[in-house]
Amino acid sequence: MAPQSQRLHHCRAATMHADSGYGLLEDAVIDLQDGYITFVGQRADAPPPTAGTELVDCEGGLVTPGLIDCHTHLVWAGSRADEFAQRLHGASYADIAAQGGGIAATVRATRAASLAELVAVSRPRLEALLREGVTTIEIKSGYGLSLEHERKQLQAARQLATDYPVSVATTLLAAHALPPEYRDRGDDYIDLIVSEILPTLAAEGLVDAVDAFCESVGFSPAQTERVFVAARALDLPVKLHAEQLTNQHGSALAARYQALSCDHLEQLDEAGVKAMAASGTVAVMLPGAFYFLRDTQVPPLELLRQHQVPIALATDANPGTSPILSLQLMLQMGATLFRMTPEECLRGVTVNAAKALGYSDRGVLKAGLRADICCWNVSDPAELSYQFGTDRLTSCWYQGVRR
Amino acid sequence: MAPQSQRLHHCRAATMHADSGYGLLEDAVIDLQDGYITFVGQRADAPPPTAGTELVDCEGGLVTPGLIDCHTHLVWAGSRADEFAQRLHGASYADIAAQGGGIAATVRATRAASLAELVAVSRPRLEALLREGVTTIEIKSGYGLSLEHERKQLQAARQLATDYPVSVATTLLAAHALPPEYRDRGDDYIDLIVSEILPTLAAEGLVDAVDAFCESVGFSPAQTERVFVAARALDLPVKLHAEQLTNQHGSALAARYQALSCDHLEQLDEAGVKAMAASGTVAVMLPGAFYFLRDTQVPPLELLRQHQVPIALATDANPGTSPILSLQLMLQMGATLFRMTPEECLRGVTVNAAKALGYSDRGVLKAGLRADICCWNVSDPAELSYQFGTDRLTSCWYQGVRR
Ligand SMILES: [Zn+2]
Ligand SMILES: [Zn+2]
Repeated sequence: MAPQSQRLHHCRAATMHADSGYGLLEDAVIDLQDGYITFVGQRADAPPPTAGTELVDCEGGLVTPGLIDCHTHLVWAGSRADEFAQRLHGASYADIAAQGGGIAATVRATRAASLAELVAVSRPRLEALLREGVTTIEIKSGYGLSLEHERKQLQAARQLATDYPVSVATTLLAAHALPPEYRDRGDDYIDLIVSEILPTLAAEGLVDAVDAFCESVGFSPAQTERVFVAARALDLPVKLHAEQLTNQHGSALAARYQALSCDHLEQLDEAGVKAMAASGTVAVMLPGAFYFLRDTQVPPLELLRQHQVPIALATDANPGTSPILSLQLMLQMGATLFRMTPEECLRGVTVNAAKALGYSDRGVLKAGLRADICCWNVSDPAELSYQFGTDRLTSCWYQGVRR
Repeated sequence: MAPQSQRLHHCRAATMHADSGYGLLEDAVIDLQDGYITFVGQRADAPPPTAGTELVDCEGGLVTPGLIDCHTHLVWAGSRADEFAQRLHGASYADIAAQGGGIAATVRATRAASLAELVAVSRPRLEALLREGVTTIEIKSGYGLSLEHERKQLQAARQLATDYPVSVATTLLAAHALPPEYRDRGDDYIDLIVSEILPTLAAEGLVDAVDAFCESVGFSPAQTERVFVAARALDLPVKLHAEQLTNQHGSALAARYQALSCDHLEQLDEAGVKAMAASGTVAVMLPGAFYFLRDTQVPPLELLRQHQVPIALATDANPGTSPILSLQLMLQMGATLFRMTPEECLRGVTVNAAKALGYSDRGVLKAGLRADICCWNVSDPAELSYQFGTDRLTSCWYQGVRR
């Protein structure tokens, strides 16, 4: 149990409570009570601690909001290490696909796994992120591709939320790929999603948001829009895998449905940026997939800045294009590969990642918000994007309880 | 203390005892005694365990040699996070250099640090590598650039070897950069190295090998050769930072001095490859620097394979061009960025990394060699290159003692 009241002191705070930058506070005091932040400010302005308050000496470290990984496909079964090796030995994507590899292999393995098995294989992935200071994570379905198996994936995500001190946002991504039984029948599969999968799982309380893969090799803008219409009719927010490989103008479409976020965006154009800016949609950068696919087209960061689109940063953890369970590595890659500033990187995994999930109760150190907090033994917040590999996390509080 | 005798069983072993590939053994047994391996083979061929042998159930995991990071600059003081941030905010290398940044900043901070301080700041870096299964690490000097401060760096490396269960190979890299007091006097600094720094520190037992930075922005081939001549006269093996930014034909030069390794090699040509093949010199791939510098010229892997040059893989951990303390990430990057096969990647951090350091007592699971061993909860060794971030290391033995 959390003590009644805690006071973190002897620290620098990157509050993220500013329109840009870290919102740095020197000689900061942060008070926590009953899982929430009750005060953030400089020591000189702090109220006297209430009786029984536990004093936590942060030893001059940096305090930040708990990290938020706002785009993952964390729950999957099977491994694609074999096809990774085959590719490096010269097999083509076509060779792999011909033998049933690629996403089809993950769908087969995920369908074959029981709920308990799916939870078990996902545990070490979640644990990797928790060790790095992640306190909120989004988990998408999209490897079940049927009512039964999309349900199982989302149930696994909910189970992880009860098993670990972490907040899990679930996203239904039934429109991720065509299931084998719907080959060449994309519209029929969309029928199934909007008439059965989505309404059923939404009614079961398993769906926090709805996503789709709008791409030349995925679903068309028209098909995507049908999913969005159905989601909004159920009052569910939408997100989109958009403009990763080609410009389908999916971001502008998503913006018309007040999408929480559009993700990837390597091929995004200025019209798409403007549409996102107008709808307040967050741009989620996924440098892990960019790296793994050896992409060379960087998302249009400068345009996103000009139009003040909030920028988030996430792992996209998945077995096909980003088998990388490290949000701290994404801070490094966001800076190195996308030339995001360290301020943008840290905002991308805190305040803007919260926005990408529709949360207004976290991602910033501010009285009234959740006490999800990390303490790091670094002085300059830029260290978190610059150096990778050393363990700088000294403490992590989830809803006011130290994990 | 190590128990008299241990038997690892119920495992698959990637012995690396083969000319290529993993040297896989199914249903393997590995016997350890007094810090050495006394038997490696299949269970059916294993001798009866001696009385008092501790049986270690590896639970079906994969056993490999302990990992070897054969190229690091682990001991440095100061941080370059500030200039990393400045660069991302638009400052040029020239701007940074004009304000005394770059390697000059690291040299200043390293010179200013005491031996104890230098050891203290290097600890978390070493700990990061140890957590990943590293049992042998090379550490270079090269931020002291004077007798006193190069000595201090190498002493720090030796101190780390006594403080942690890890084997440390020291490399004198006095010819890393020109110290400020020798500005425009490269030949004079080489005089200092060959007449004073090298012989003194070698006599003090601080130097296991000698390295140089042969580059248009570093030392010329003629200057490099003077360092090599002096090293070989002291019977010390040499290595070289070669052909990273330009082709200086440093590899062929190094091969003439029977170099243990040439490292980086993005610009290496076939003549250099042939020279390395003839001298048995290892090619050390450093994808962390390639990644961090956003280099696009991949080293000539296909030529290295054709001429059967042994290929190793290392972190190049350093504050300027590879602030990345993760050898497991190098397995991922070697495969993804350089298209090395998972077999090549694993050989690169075991058998070939041992060769790059001149060690014949480790890097392979074989009777008579050191009991430096990792056990991983993966079945396919390709997992070690494919997925990154999850903790797969279940046990690690250093000289027969579980760490
Ligand atoms: Zn995704
Ligand atoms: Zn180096």
